[in-house]
Amino acid sequence: MRLHIILLFMFICAGGSTHLLAAPKNMILIIGDGLDDQHVTMGRNYLAGMSGKLRMDQLPFRASVQVETLSPKGEARYVADSANTATALATGTITSIGRIATDIEDNDLPTIAERALSEGLRVGLVTTSSLTDATPAAFLSHVSARSCEGPEEILGSTYYGIALPACPTDALENSGPGSIVEQLVTSGAHVLLGGGEKFLRQQTVGGNTVTHLAKSEGFLVIDRDTQLEALSAPQRLLGAFDDETLEVRWRGNKARVAESPQVSWLHRISEYLGEATEPEPMNCELNPDYADTPSLAAMSRAALHQLAFDNPHGFFLMIESASIDKQSHKRNPCGSIGEIEQLEETLALAINFADSHLDTAIIVTADHAQAAQILPEPSLYERYPIPIYSPGRTARVRTPEGGMLRINYATNNGFSEEHTGANVPLFSNRVIAPWLQPFLRQREVYQAMSSFLFGPPPAPNKDSAEN
Amino acid sequence: MRLHIILLFMFICAGGSTHLLAAPKNMILIIGDGLDDQHVTMGRNYLAGMSGKLRMDQLPFRASVQVETLSPKGEARYVADSANTATALATGTITSIGRIATDIEDNDLPTIAERALSEGLRVGLVTTSSLTDATPAAFLSHVSARSCEGPEEILGSTYYGIALPACPTDALENSGPGSIVEQLVTSGAHVLLGGGEKFLRQQTVGGNTVTHLAKSEGFLVIDRDTQLEALSAPQRLLGAFDDETLEVRWRGNKARVAESPQVSWLHRISEYLGEATEPEPMNCELNPDYADTPSLAAMSRAALHQLAFDNPHGFFLMIESASIDKQSHKRNPCGSIGEIEQLEETLALAINFADSHLDTAIIVTADHAQAAQILPEPSLYERYPIPIYSPGRTARVRTPEGGMLRINYATNNGFSEEHTGANVPLFSNRVIAPWLQPFLRQREVYQAMSSFLFGPPPAPNKDSAEN
Repeated sequence: MRLHIILLFMFICAGGSTHLLAAPKNMILIIGDGLDDQHVTMGRNYLAGMSGKLRMDQLPFRASVQVETLSPKGEARYVADSANTATALATGTITSIGRIATDIEDNDLPTIAERALSEGLRVGLVTTSSLTDATPAAFLSHVSARSCEGPEEILGSTYYGIALPACPTDALENSGPGSIVEQLVTSGAHVLLGGGEKFLRQQTVGGNTVTHLAKSEGFLVIDRDTQLEALSAPQRLLGAFDDETLEVRWRGNKARVAESPQVSWLHRISEYLGEATEPEPMNCELNPDYADTPSLAAMSRAALHQLAFDNPHGFFLMIESASIDKQSHKRNPCGSIGEIEQLEETLALAINFADSHLDTAIIVTADHAQAAQILPEPSLYERYPIPIYSPGRTARVRTPEGGMLRINYATNNGFSEEHTGANVPLFSNRVIAPWLQPFLRQREVYQAMSSFLFGPPPAPNKDSAEN
Repeated sequence: MRLHIILLFMFICAGGSTHLLAAPKNMILIIGDGLDDQHVTMGRNYLAGMSGKLRMDQLPFRASVQVETLSPKGEARYVADSANTATALATGTITSIGRIATDIEDNDLPTIAERALSEGLRVGLVTTSSLTDATPAAFLSHVSARSCEGPEEILGSTYYGIALPACPTDALENSGPGSIVEQLVTSGAHVLLGGGEKFLRQQTVGGNTVTHLAKSEGFLVIDRDTQLEALSAPQRLLGAFDDETLEVRWRGNKARVAESPQVSWLHRISEYLGEATEPEPMNCELNPDYADTPSLAAMSRAALHQLAFDNPHGFFLMIESASIDKQSHKRNPCGSIGEIEQLEETLALAINFADSHLDTAIIVTADHAQAAQILPEPSLYERYPIPIYSPGRTARVRTPEGGMLRINYATNNGFSEEHTGANVPLFSNRVIAPWLQPFLRQREVYQAMSSFLFGPPPAPNKDSAEN
């Protein structure tokens, strides 16, 4: 008798799993959109100080992740967008820019969130972007183009007069699975919180709104007036707190973003003459439009509550801090830093959750690198008697410790910066052996998450192991 | 008797150290100057392919390292140069830009290489830059400014007409320790291989050349005609194979570097009109000037041979791949990629050495981030009917797998790009516990190396552990 107890104890200690003994497995994937090492360092210098540490810096596991992208013909591409990278994370398959959980031949790719649902786990998506934006979309919908967000867009739309791709074969009218928003609300997910209210107001087939469709699927549809803390669980939740992307928490004072240098007329005649004046320093301040926007942490707390309540089967939760990327497109360093603060708060919440729910894995990663670069202040060449400046846009942001963060955006002359092609960081609260290695490809993050949730893991394929 | 043997065996297995039993400890520090994650990814995409792995990607330990810099007054600065970062790696102390193993109050800081010498280990420095350049300099010399490379420069010099800092109190004439080159050749180091021959030809006090001084210190002074493979050991070696920086292995075809876009006159009138043409694609090719320049791997092989031969005490070897940074300053992606290939070859050599010399730790890291960014090809905004391009210089480099690496340099309008401020990667062949953590400050890399070579390690200071 005593021996049996000892053996049972040893079995539990060795991680032996039986359905009777195993705790529910929970996977929390936090995606910092555009959170590359320049942005992590920008966040660290501002939020923790040059010699401080972010919460993500304190996680016990850290890796670099290569971002793989294909051309529509299947050739190697070196810079991604959020659609093909979210597809790699959600499905383990590389695809081309703009695709949502479809391969380059437009086959639907099963996602980790769908598998979780089919195995009885709960699923949640939380984001500061529209719920229909590429990153959340790729976990629970399949369309040929990210622009097919709602039933109005799926047959074609324009952006500043430019035609965006349509997804005719995906439309419900053509016996497809519908637009992204229609697929999301009929996916079986338990929690959908973020932006994108305008897509919920659109009419779906039969003349009802998408909100109506969501209610018929059992969703409690909430808005800004809902006290997220007061929700009783378990309850399927759909909340869209803005028309599209949620307002960001911080901005530059007077709503300033990065600016071009002012150059004198003499300098226009010769690059060695005249004067160039860099933009005046700025401070970050609260964005008044943020107002009562729910924070990423508040949405994530509500999601965790709904997903974990009386749940013996575990869950998959994807949380996106979307505006690191979106604000870098707009050359707004304060916007990106405030969004990194939101991610940090959410990570703290997730770590607390994992402390009391032991089989919870947290992975923080980025989808792709982005335009911002930290430049020297002053320039390394300040002693040279010629005008020296970045040819792009620059912001000089005062930090709380009294330093000056000079942030440069110079990938694009137009209205929006380009993504960049560096590998991105990955942080985790645990080592998911053998899958989480110091160097990974994005599709291998999918494999790590899948093996954690649905183990035992399949053997790594030969190509992965040897390349 | 038998019990004693078992206990001794257990003691050895448990890592117990006695001077009788311990193998010599060897530390190989490989610094990729400017080797940030953009450059690592650029190297990976070109040398191994989008889905391939570099040798550094295959090392079992990987971390991110925060680069700390002080202003001359001790305030936080967010972008470094190679002098203050090499000082942090060599001494564990943060200092200001341009300083060589001196703190902001100009006190000399003891270096890991000096401690190695004082404890009977051999020391070598190998670099593709001048041996007197900031990175190697900070391991075996102490001056207030990196420009004080030779006895002619220490009292003041100019660069393109710009006065460079002098180091009057460091000059031998003023009872100082002398210029960098004078300190290097009298440091007691066993191997110094790289560039910087012009500094060896200068006269030191007494009217003799620095080469003469080096010979009087016991150095065998070698040149390009020396068969590095044929050297017998042990022998103190000084080799400078070029006047300053060594020629790089690769260049763009027709010696092309990144170029500005060509814009039409209409576009000069309005940013929404006219046309912009990005530079034509280029291929990387062998640089004919590289010719018989010894490779970084060949120099490192000779250094390892000299340092390890019949050496019961171990060694410290710093190897710098300098031109990743220098070629990015010049907007020459092929130059940087060829230099990353040199670093990879050298790392392969070091790994082989560590396989047969078990107590050898290899750390690969960068000193600071640099300007190059990988941009989308084509632009994310290619469908927009306005001219879209980077405002900086761009190179479109064909890769062996048939892709197109579009590399952007846009930190500076002038003759040389700026460094950038991201944390940098670190790779190691082993975990030096408890010092090598997933997130480190540069000064903690010094602590890890010191504790490995001179253990037992001191306890981490409270500030390090808690921040």
